[in-house]
Amino acid sequence: MNPTETITLREVGPRDGLQLVKAIVPTEHKIAWVRRAVDAGVPEVEVTSLVPPKVSPQFADAGDVAEAVVGLPGYVPSALTPNLKGAERGLALGFPKLNYVMSASEEHSLANSRRPSEASIEDFERIVEARNAGAPDTRLGAGIATTFGCTIQGEVPEARVYEIASRLAGLGADEIILADTVGYANPAQVKRIVAGVKREIGDLPIVIHLHDTRGLGLANMTAGIEAGVRFFDASVGGLGGCPFAPGASGNINLEDAAFLAESMGFATGIDFDKLMALRERVEAWLPGERFAGQLSQSGLPKGFHAAAAQAA
Amino acid sequence: MNPTETITLREVGPRDGLQLVKAIVPTEHKIAWVRRAVDAGVPEVEVTSLVPPKVSPQFADAGDVAEAVVGLPGYVPSALTPNLKGAERGLALGFPKLNYVMSASEEHSLANSRRPSEASIEDFERIVEARNAGAPDTRLGAGIATTFGCTIQGEVPEARVYEIASRLAGLGADEIILADTVGYANPAQVKRIVAGVKREIGDLPIVIHLHDTRGLGLANMTAGIEAGVRFFDASVGGLGGCPFAPGASGNINLEDAAFLAESMGFATGIDFDKLMALRERVEAWLPGERFAGQLSQSGLPKGFHAAAAQAA
Repeated sequence: MNPTETITLREVGPRDGLQLVKAIVPTEHKIAWVRRAVDAGVPEVEVTSLVPPKVSPQFADAGDVAEAVVGLPGYVPSALTPNLKGAERGLALGFPKLNYVMSASEEHSLANSRRPSEASIEDFERIVEARNAGAPDTRLGAGIATTFGCTIQGEVPEARVYEIASRLAGLGADEIILADTVGYANPAQVKRIVAGVKREIGDLPIVIHLHDTRGLGLANMTAGIEAGVRFFDASVGGLGGCPFAPGASGNINLEDAAFLAESMGFATGIDFDKLMALRERVEAWLPGERFAGQLSQSGLPKGFHAAAAQAA
Repeated sequence: MNPTETITLREVGPRDGLQLVKAIVPTEHKIAWVRRAVDAGVPEVEVTSLVPPKVSPQFADAGDVAEAVVGLPGYVPSALTPNLKGAERGLALGFPKLNYVMSASEEHSLANSRRPSEASIEDFERIVEARNAGAPDTRLGAGIATTFGCTIQGEVPEARVYEIASRLAGLGADEIILADTVGYANPAQVKRIVAGVKREIGDLPIVIHLHDTRGLGLANMTAGIEAGVRFFDASVGGLGGCPFAPGASGNINLEDAAFLAESMGFATGIDFDKLMALRERVEAWLPGERFAGQLSQSGLPKGFHAAAAQAA
C-alpha cells in the first residue's frame, strides 16, 4: 500500500466568499468562521483581503480579524493583497503567508487594478523586497488571475501566463496561484497550462483557484490533481464571485471538493460533520445568499471512510 | 491538427428525468421535448421507460410517445426496459435501440427488481433471443446499475461488475452502460473500472450514466473521457433521480456536459441556444421541480466556438 498523499484545501470564504456579499458581515462572525474552519481541520484559511477599505468596506476590519486569528494554532492564515501597500499592512499584521494577485489579461488588469500587467509584476518585486527586509519567513503566494480566460478580453495568451509565472517565481514567489477568475477553464486546458507552468517554475508549489461558474469546477480540480497539483482554493457553500464575472458563480464548494479528494484516496484532514456544521452557521449568517454544493444535501456514501494522512 | 473527435450525449430526461416527478407529464410535452432535443442536435434520446404502467404511471403513454418519435430523422431513439416483457414491447414499437438495466448490487437488485442479479443476467439472454428472432437490427444496450456503489449495500465488488459486463457482452449486448445510479462514483474509480471493463469487453462501446448527487458528476465524466469513453447519458436541467438514492440528485446536466465536452475540443453536434430554449420549456412544464446546472445561469465564455465534428 502506498502511504496516503495529502491534498491541501484552503478555505477562501472569509475573503473571496464575501467579496460580492452586500451585507457587511460582523467581525465576530468572520472570526468564528475561521475558528470553526480550523476546528474542522481545514489546513489553510484566507481570512481577509488587504484592499483599501474605501474600495471594499467589507474588509475594513482586516486588522481586527488578523489580530484575532493569525496566532491560532493548527493552520496557516493568509490574506489577499492587491499591491505593495496591502502587503506592507499584511507583514505588519504578522501573517505567515500573503497572497498577491495580478491579472494575465491586460483588459482585466486595467479594469480591476487600473494598471497594465507589467506594472503589477514590478509591484511584486517591491513586495518581495519588503518581505525580505521586514519578515523574511513570510511566504508569498503569487496569483495569476484570468489564467484560463477573461470575460472582458476573451482568450488570454498561454505564453503570457507562462512568462508571468516564470517572472513571479524568479522574483521570489513561494507559490504560484493559477486562478480561473471567471470560470472559463476546462479540464484539458488545466492539464496543459499546469504542465506549461511547471516547465517554467520547476518544483515550486502550484495552487489552483477555481470558480464553478459553468459547472466545470470539480472537473477542473480533477484535471489539476491528475496534473500533479495538490493545493486548491475552495469556499464553504461555494460562496464567492468576481465583479467581472456576471452570472451565478462562486468558488468551488469546499465540502464537495473535500469529498472529491477523499474519495480519490487523498487525505484532507477535514472533518465532514464539523464542516457541515460550519456551512449551516454561515448560511444562517448570510440569509439571501446563494449556497451551492451537493454533499450537504445528499451526505457521504454508505460506509465512506476518510483517507488517513501519511505520517510525516 | 487532429480531426475533432465526437462525444455522444444521450438526453435521458424524458425517461430518467421523469422517473421521480410526481405530476404526470402530458404526452404532447414529452413528444415536444424529444422533437426539440433532436432539433438542438442531440444525437440520442431515451424517450420513455417500458416499465409496467402499474409500477410507474408516468410511462403509461410509452406506446403513444414511441409512435410519435421513433420515426423522426436525425437521431437514435431508445427506451429503457427492465425485463423481457418491456423488451418485447420495445421491439414491437420499432425502437432501433433498447437499454436493458440490471443491478450489480444484490441488495439493490432485490429491492428494485425483486430478483437476484443472476436472474437478471438470464433475463438478458432471453431479451437477446427475442431481438435476434424478431428484429435483429435492434441494438441492445446492457446497463449495470450501482456499478460504483449502492446506498443499500454500500460497496459493490468490482470483480462482480467485471463478471457481469463480460457475461452481458458475451450474450450479445451492443453497448455496456456503466451506471452510477446513486452518485457514489469518484474519478479515480471511474478510470479504474472503465479500464477493468475494457479488459473484459474489448472494443464494445461503453456508455457512462452519471448522477451528480455528491457534486462529482462532471468530474467523473472527465475521468470517463480520459479513460476513452465517448458516450454519456445526461438530462436537460439535471433532472432525475433514483428511488433508492435519497437527497437532491439528478443526472449530470446536459447543458454543462455539452459545454465540458466542447470546451475540451470534442464535437457534440449540440446547438447551445436551442438547448437552452428546451431547458426553459421543460422548466415551464415542470414547475416546482429542482433544475440544476451552471451554464444556463452564466452563458458561454466570450469568443467560445463549438468544435466542428470530424468528417465521416
